Amino acid sequence: MITTLLNTLQRITIAPSQIHDKYIALTPEQHHYLTRVIRLQPSAKFEAIDGTGKLYLCEIIINSSQRTAVATAEIIEIMTPLVSGADLLASQELTQAITLICALPKGNNFDDIVRACTELGVTTILPAISDRTLLNPSPQKLPRWRKIAQEAAEQSERLIIPTIAEPQPLQTIFSQLPSESSKYLCEARGEYPHLLSCLQSNQPIATQTILAIGPEGGWTDAEIDLAIEHNFQLVSLGRHILRTITAPIVALSIVTATR
Amino acid sequence: MITTLLNTLQRITIAPSQIHDKYIALTPEQHHYLTRVIRLQPSAKFEAIDGTGKLYLCEIIINSSQRTAVATAEIIEIMTPLVSGADLLASQELTQAITLICALPKGNNFDDIVRACTELGVTTILPAISDRTLLNPSPQKLPRWRKIAQEAAEQSERLIIPTIAEPQPLQTIFSQLPSESSKYLCEARGEYPHLLSCLQSNQPIATQTILAIGPEGGWTDAEIDLAIEHNFQLVSLGRHILRTITAPIVALSIVTATR
Repeated sequence: MITTLLNTLQRITIAPSQIHDKYIALTPEQHHYLTRVIRLQPSAKFEAIDGTGKLYLCEIIINSSQRTAVATAEIIEIMTPLVSGADLLASQELTQAITLICALPKGNNFDDIVRACTELGVTTILPAISDRTLLNPSPQKLPRWRKIAQEAAEQSERLIIPTIAEPQPLQTIFSQLPSESSKYLCEARGEYPHLLSCLQSNQPIATQTILAIGPEGGWTDAEIDLAIEHNFQLVSLGRHILRTITAPIVALSIVTATR
Repeated sequence: MITTLLNTLQRITIAPSQIHDKYIALTPEQHHYLTRVIRLQPSAKFEAIDGTGKLYLCEIIINSSQRTAVATAEIIEIMTPLVSGADLLASQELTQAITLICALPKGNNFDDIVRACTELGVTTILPAISDRTLLNPSPQKLPRWRKIAQEAAEQSERLIIPTIAEPQPLQTIFSQLPSESSKYLCEARGEYPHLLSCLQSNQPIATQTILAIGPEGGWTDAEIDLAIEHNFQLVSLGRHILRTITAPIVALSIVTATR
């Protein structure tokens, strides 16, 4: 609910490979968007992010005599690494990563989870195939989730686009987690300490929070044992009964509120 | 993400007017649901809530010889006023009300706000027509939101169905708020204290939290002044840019986490 009051420039997302020296080779879609949809005039400025935390102030180059040439934009300024406003947010993003391990829910609900968690500052989403996941997701889902994350990152003026991994079994995900200086938290049902109190307790500050949220029906006992083996602390999200789609948003809200 | 592990009884919502002495006069829809959809057998038990905090243990009465008569259920036990589990949640609901004043967003997004905030324990939702609300909602919306709240309350095993008022201008809503022992919080953009720190500060405990969340683009300056006049404390939801649909869920997550 906070918009950058100073910044009214349009922002697009580019791939780092589009940058050649001080120019950006625009894709036909980006060029169409900038010149036809939002109708930038020659020399108009816009912003581009490359998803790695860099923000570029750019100027569109419109050359009507060369319609077949690659459309380009010139980089006027590389705005990083950052002192205030959106920039502070970016530097915060880079130092305090949040990884969400999320059991895949039924239906298309994962779209909403990706969208809201991107708004809330998630860095990495690891979709988990759990014992209670009913169906394997279709292979078309992953590009769709990545597109949603990109759009949500643009709308929220984030400089980082969350990484979304391919869905994998929970055991595989657990075995590949980084070990250094991370806080491992696994949502579980029962009389566990509340996520908020765990985050506010005086433990050493971790550079990364890794949060696992279960499926409809919760993690199985075997999955909970596995989480404990991998040094996860079991936490509660309170006494309310939440849908699988609401639980990750609630958890992320609490994580970001304590930062 | 917590389900009641002990309780596998189906639950329906009834109106208090359906109760006659120790019997419930079922509507044709409820009777169809109980006997045809979930196929309860004669004398099978189910639960009914009347939306005021009362939970009834009931037995279906199936009399195949009287198909035209009013279908009834017998109340076996009135389970209130409550000592543990879902009951504790109910007693908590009755003592710590949460009222959400929420500016109407564009499109159908209010459905999702109603659903998620019901899961998170909201008591009353007051849809607000703000200076930046683009369209007046159609009159069909209110019954729809109430139905969504009822269904979400059933799914979350809440004993109270949130009250949803008719959309009204913000000024009208502010002028009708209760004055006694309530904590008034209004989300605003800028360098205000975070909602979490306001809730955790050592102020006298309020029996009711009243939370106002603005529209796309935020409250106008005039609306913010109006909120201050009505004793609202301005709070921030953090530096992230949230959609109008995400902001109330984030705010409710933080309110319920501190209880």
